[in-house]
Amino acid sequence: MTELRQNLITRDWVVIATERSKRPDEFSKDSARICEPIPTYRENCPFCEGNEHLTGIECARLCDDRGWRVRSVVNKYPAFSPEEAFLRQGGNIYRAMSGFGFHEVIIEHPRHDANIANLPIADVANVLQMYRQRYTVMRRDSRVSAIIIFKNHGKGAGTSLEHPHSQIAAMPIVPYQLRLRTREAVRHFDDHGECLFCRTLHEELAAQERIIYESEYFVAFIPYAALSPFHTWIFPRRHVSSFENITEAEIFDLAENLKTVLSKLYIGLNNPDYNYTIRSIPTDEHKTGYFHWYLAIVPRVSLAAGFEMGSGMFINTALPEESAEFLRSIEIPATFEMSG
Amino acid sequence: MTELRQNLITRDWVVIATERSKRPDEFSKDSARICEPIPTYRENCPFCEGNEHLTGIECARLCDDRGWRVRSVVNKYPAFSPEEAFLRQGGNIYRAMSGFGFHEVIIEHPRHDANIANLPIADVANVLQMYRQRYTVMRRDSRVSAIIIFKNHGKGAGTSLEHPHSQIAAMPIVPYQLRLRTREAVRHFDDHGECLFCRTLHEELAAQERIIYESEYFVAFIPYAALSPFHTWIFPRRHVSSFENITEAEIFDLAENLKTVLSKLYIGLNNPDYNYTIRSIPTDEHKTGYFHWYLAIVPRVSLAAGFEMGSGMFINTALPEESAEFLRSIEIPATFEMSG
Repeated sequence: MTELRQNLITRDWVVIATERSKRPDEFSKDSARICEPIPTYRENCPFCEGNEHLTGIECARLCDDRGWRVRSVVNKYPAFSPEEAFLRQGGNIYRAMSGFGFHEVIIEHPRHDANIANLPIADVANVLQMYRQRYTVMRRDSRVSAIIIFKNHGKGAGTSLEHPHSQIAAMPIVPYQLRLRTREAVRHFDDHGECLFCRTLHEELAAQERIIYESEYFVAFIPYAALSPFHTWIFPRRHVSSFENITEAEIFDLAENLKTVLSKLYIGLNNPDYNYTIRSIPTDEHKTGYFHWYLAIVPRVSLAAGFEMGSGMFINTALPEESAEFLRSIEIPATFEMSG
Repeated sequence: MTELRQNLITRDWVVIATERSKRPDEFSKDSARICEPIPTYRENCPFCEGNEHLTGIECARLCDDRGWRVRSVVNKYPAFSPEEAFLRQGGNIYRAMSGFGFHEVIIEHPRHDANIANLPIADVANVLQMYRQRYTVMRRDSRVSAIIIFKNHGKGAGTSLEHPHSQIAAMPIVPYQLRLRTREAVRHFDDHGECLFCRTLHEELAAQERIIYESEYFVAFIPYAALSPFHTWIFPRRHVSSFENITEAEIFDLAENLKTVLSKLYIGLNNPDYNYTIRSIPTDEHKTGYFHWYLAIVPRVSLAAGFEMGSGMFINTALPEESAEFLRSIEIPATFEMSG
């Protein structure tokens, strides 16, 4: 028995295939993995404290009396660079644009073995502060059309550097995916006079079936049509279109919420590889009634193959309600947090 | 220096990032890999000749005097099944549909070590015959809205079974990806009075920069905005919307073309993992002026990560023109073909 569910926000259909399903803990990585000790410092790591000369140009740093806490540096292989021209070519079937924009790496902590899951909340909040600062600076450039923030955790999620870091990319075009989602959000607003994301959050809070964790300003839940096991969304309760407008109080609350969810994934699935991304409206639109920023987490516990390529649909072998129940049940021991 | 290119058929933007680029042969897999001898038969393989009792219900077979050459059997874990109801649920934000449809595995050859790259053309043609036959049967059911054919080759491409096989899935909804592409194709037709795919093929043949291989009825080329290194399209020269309408002569020609391209990938990149898919119009539309079926191949030589998740865009570290030149230059020795 399978069920198809449609994600109203992305419009994608997902096949929920429970006959293939495993118990939630069977998605966990080999238990050997969690025991690998990560050192606090590596001599050749460009992101470790003391090796600052190994990174590219530093764009910003947050400091306290211990030294820097978070740094943002130019990506060594930028997808977008302010040194590129801002040139668009069209008119025939070959459409191109030079790679103008910004692409920075945010070094989340001086220590090599830090992890958002077990950092103190204040340190996670520093990372989010840096996200907001860099977002705000990049958006000021009128040639920028869209900004995404993302993190690759672990080799299976596409990172080659072990030191904890995220990335922020500001690009000169609106990605088609974002165009489509914005268009669908506008259509929902026009049809129903409400924000589709607010409505989704409202329904999820009423149903409670897929909620993982609630904090004062944020709600973490598994989407009804999750595209893979433990695919998670963290929505702000307040309607706001761009991450840039997150408040100080919301930053601390999101730090606590994100840390909690990532801790549950770490403990429940044995430190899985994952990606997360913060999705905002295209920068030209900014404040709207129809779009709502959010953070999406995808643990890499399944592989997209020919079916996904051919249809754009995903086969999810876990029931979203069961994934949420499993993560709700995970307790985080007080000893889990790294001592600062 | 990076360049953004837009794929007019998918509307996706791709970042061509040549500073990260490798030489074409550096995408090749570890050379140890090609030497692993695959046996002609495995006792516990459900797809090997003699083990037919280990598969699910057989839906069709092609035979000659040597026995069966290709079989199509019900997928052990079907995403879609004719035993499911045909029920759609909507009206609120939770849209669902039961998993009605068909999902079969096409066993490409009796031998465990067969590979489309080195099978005789007649054997490859048998596989394509079976694709067409199953497509035709499934389309007759009016509850089917879309059919995709796909293949996962190698563990990195998501297959767990070594014996060569493909899959065909007939589903009760039109995937959003296919809806969008159809819509964009209609728009191009309305704006320009031509098929966007025919136009693309015309331009590619004129430019010759990205062509890999031309045969009588098909052209293999790297898309201008290829989403990853060696992403390849094989287009029929004749305008036709659905794979179902492929002719007998075209089947033999496609067999030769596909085999050639896969041989070049096998030799040039050391038997890479890959997915391919055959894309046709939704079954309700069938014969149209605007949509053109094609086969897409994606070798798994790069990994999608947070950037791709957050933007829907891909970063391609290879220049499509160079990838095409490399594949054009690969010679296929006469000894490469498996003896039947």
